[in-house]
Amino acid sequence: MQVSFTPAEIVSMVQPKSMRGATSAPIRGLASLSSAVRGDLSFLGNARYKADVAATLASVVLLPLDYPGEPGADQLFLLVEQPSVALARICAHLEQMLWPKPTPGVHPSACVDPGAQVHPSATVGPLCVVEAGAVVGERAHLQAQVFVGRNAQVGADNWLMPGVVVGAECVLGKRVRLQPGVVIGSDGFGYEFVGGKHEKVPQVGQVVIGDDVEIGANSTLDRARFSRTEVGEGTKIDNLVQIAHNVVIGKHCLVCAQVGISGSTVLEDYVVLGGQAGLGGHIRIGKGAKAGGQAGITSDIAAGAFVNGTPAIPFQLERRLAILHQRLPDLFKRVDALEARKS
Amino acid sequence: MQVSFTPAEIVSMVQPKSMRGATSAPIRGLASLSSAVRGDLSFLGNARYKADVAATLASVVLLPLDYPGEPGADQLFLLVEQPSVALARICAHLEQMLWPKPTPGVHPSACVDPGAQVHPSATVGPLCVVEAGAVVGERAHLQAQVFVGRNAQVGADNWLMPGVVVGAECVLGKRVRLQPGVVIGSDGFGYEFVGGKHEKVPQVGQVVIGDDVEIGANSTLDRARFSRTEVGEGTKIDNLVQIAHNVVIGKHCLVCAQVGISGSTVLEDYVVLGGQAGLGGHIRIGKGAKAGGQAGITSDIAAGAFVNGTPAIPFQLERRLAILHQRLPDLFKRVDALEARKS
Amino acid sequence: MQVSFTPAEIVSMVQPKSMRGATSAPIRGLASLSSAVRGDLSFLGNARYKADVAATLASVVLLPLDYPGEPGADQLFLLVEQPSVALARICAHLEQMLWPKPTPGVHPSACVDPGAQVHPSATVGPLCVVEAGAVVGERAHLQAQVFVGRNAQVGADNWLMPGVVVGAECVLGKRVRLQPGVVIGSDGFGYEFVGGKHEKVPQVGQVVIGDDVEIGANSTLDRARFSRTEVGEGTKIDNLVQIAHNVVIGKHCLVCAQVGISGSTVLEDYVVLGGQAGLGGHIRIGKGAKAGGQAGITSDIAAGAFVNGTPAIPFQLERRLAILHQRLPDLFKRVDALEARKS
Repeated sequence: MQVSFTPAEIVSMVQPKSMRGATSAPIRGLASLSSAVRGDLSFLGNARYKADVAATLASVVLLPLDYPGEPGADQLFLLVEQPSVALARICAHLEQMLWPKPTPGVHPSACVDPGAQVHPSATVGPLCVVEAGAVVGERAHLQAQVFVGRNAQVGADNWLMPGVVVGAECVLGKRVRLQPGVVIGSDGFGYEFVGGKHEKVPQVGQVVIGDDVEIGANSTLDRARFSRTEVGEGTKIDNLVQIAHNVVIGKHCLVCAQVGISGSTVLEDYVVLGGQAGLGGHIRIGKGAKAGGQAGITSDIAAGAFVNGTPAIPFQLERRLAILHQRLPDLFKRVDALEARKS
Repeated sequence: MQVSFTPAEIVSMVQPKSMRGATSAPIRGLASLSSAVRGDLSFLGNARYKADVAATLASVVLLPLDYPGEPGADQLFLLVEQPSVALARICAHLEQMLWPKPTPGVHPSACVDPGAQVHPSATVGPLCVVEAGAVVGERAHLQAQVFVGRNAQVGADNWLMPGVVVGAECVLGKRVRLQPGVVIGSDGFGYEFVGGKHEKVPQVGQVVIGDDVEIGANSTLDRARFSRTEVGEGTKIDNLVQIAHNVVIGKHCLVCAQVGISGSTVLEDYVVLGGQAGLGGHIRIGKGAKAGGQAGITSDIAAGAFVNGTPAIPFQLERRLAILHQRLPDLFKRVDALEARKS
Repeated sequence: MQVSFTPAEIVSMVQPKSMRGATSAPIRGLASLSSAVRGDLSFLGNARYKADVAATLASVVLLPLDYPGEPGADQLFLLVEQPSVALARICAHLEQMLWPKPTPGVHPSACVDPGAQVHPSATVGPLCVVEAGAVVGERAHLQAQVFVGRNAQVGADNWLMPGVVVGAECVLGKRVRLQPGVVIGSDGFGYEFVGGKHEKVPQVGQVVIGDDVEIGANSTLDRARFSRTEVGEGTKIDNLVQIAHNVVIGKHCLVCAQVGISGSTVLEDYVVLGGQAGLGGHIRIGKGAKAGGQAGITSDIAAGAFVNGTPAIPFQLERRLAILHQRLPDLFKRVDALEARKS
């Protein structure tokens, strides 16, 4: 994407606490400290790259307030409280250029049932389907090839990317962003074993998504058996995540890619789950608890705990056991030697 | 969803062995024992919630035959052999209300090749594609934005939800239900390493799905190298599951979310695989075998076995080893102490 | 699929070094040695099936040069350097029959923005969306219901299967094949924790895919924060794989199903990752390194190493530790016995 900002525009976006040096170069790109060329903006987001600042060719560099060095010729240092937050602000401007505001209205190729309500400020893009009884809120954006089922509700300022499926009766809050291929409201996986066959337990509940939730590409959230599967306000879910029926996720959680959460499990607020973690059903993860990648969690986790491994145990213990595990060959030898002593 | 049943309608659906008490409340919702209010139906599906029955406000409660207590005022107890099966029967009625029978016919926005055969009783919904030579059977329902490739066969009473892809030459039995985003007939992952490059082994086989199979959202089933990838009658597959080429899955298996099964592996009938389990290629899982969540299976499993862990071993042994693993710090100390003894 | 080749056509495709016997049977199918019937072609791809050759009913059998046996009556042996490569050549012919060359042009139901460039030799199938500024190269094939976003580039001879999403600004090389449901260019999972909330870090970079890359069904590749997520030439990625933002994958790698690679991690050339392996962020996997299925990799791996387990360690060590782990019950008993000795 073509970027073009003056140094003054950058200053106005990030509102630095102080500045050092100056540059006349227009900003044409963003790059890491070591790969930046003249005309790029860069930043020190992680202290371990500190040594790269002195040699960077970037024309504008975002730095923490306590950074001691001086800029080179034709180089501008902007000192801010959190360089990565400042960078995010710049990227938000870029994002508006990358994703220009869509034109409101329903694309002629979209199939919108006469019994659906689409707000005049909303955009229903090409080849979308909106079934009867569905509601599409103010400024909501169904980009292309999106499906919204019967009586589903898409909230204000939602952005549903290509190929998203929102099943019947499901409800999305405000400012929800669903990446391509997300499925909301697939059937829960519930069967009764009767007469040698798995008889389907119909899944007639909903999925209810809170405000400011984001869900990653091709993730799947099952509808409840008869009540609600819930995702709380501000929670962010990565790609290819599986959320089973009747799961309740609290506010402001982070669920990394390929996590699987089994039925009826509860995540309290601010829980963080590492990639590929798997959670059993009917358990509760306490507020602010964290789990490492690939953790296998089969019982309740206390608030604030940090667990790892399968079965998941406190992180420090898991690390210690992993080290002792690697010393098993030595331990077996030591026991051999002890046995060889005269008793 | 708006529910409205009279108590008499509920009685007629579940056919209880006996009843206690009576209620005049119309049934407006389903809820767990502890969250139910007047007008709700609830049930005792799991003995550990038995204590909740006495205090429930539900107007109608489904209970096992041996439940000893008496209902409250304006409350009806229905005693049945399996309360959760009885509930499933009620939910099946709700499901018919949630998913009304589609109108037969081809939506004008669908692209159906003149060389395809769509039964007059079938429904091809908006923006579906049906290629030449494909057959769509009696009462089959392609909901919306479904793709059915050349010469593929969609059986009678199938329900293919939005975004499903059925690749060329693949065959679906009767009453198959595919959740949104399922891919049937992607290429198997096969390459020959020739001259420093991975040369593609063309994948020209089929996927053949038996009657009464259900597959969860965004799961993927690869076509065989040149024969068939098979899923047997009555098997249920959850979301985000990967089935590689030439896998043969027997009848009435349960495959939980995010399981991966590598090429040419065979599951006999009634196998149950926990979530995120991974199976190597070219192995055989015996009839009725079970694997725990995240199990890593790299060799054959005997019929009826229950395995866990990576590499998967018998469940009881895995549990015992996990406990001993946690006692390693103590064991190292004990060996230290033994070594410190005078020899 | 209906197959029909004369034995002479088979000979012409595989160019054998030598032949034994002869057959008059037209070739109607491909099958394994043990399941083949008259009219089938079979092959010995794996030495452990060698004993099956003598009894096979296949009319034509592909065999390695050193195979000593003689054919039966009406049976033709073709001796080639690599039977499985020879088979792949035959399957390539079948593939052309299975997937006939599409007719160039834009299907009338597709929505192609006037500001997009579609080469006259390309095929844009039914119900595809191509946004403004996008480029679709020579002979590229967008099969059906594909989405190509603003300014994205689809290279020559690409094949994008039904339901593929290529996000804005992303670039695909030549001869790229994307299986159904692949998502290229979903947002990276990046947030700053500010004031008790996860503030989105806009993701404004690209995904750049090299020539001859193949990506499996429903896999997801996130766009970079502001630079590029890259997949090198000739790399093959299986189904349901997650590639996070800023990941750089080298040339000719194999990434098996359900692998997850966290942000900014680098795979050098010829890396092989087994199914369900999980990689942490900001690490480097050296050239030609291999990881077993379900491996959990959290630090750099040296070129050529073969690792296994979680945390991943050298394969041989991991195997040895797994065996010792299973001997823990005995070890505890031995230590009990030592303690019981008189000191």
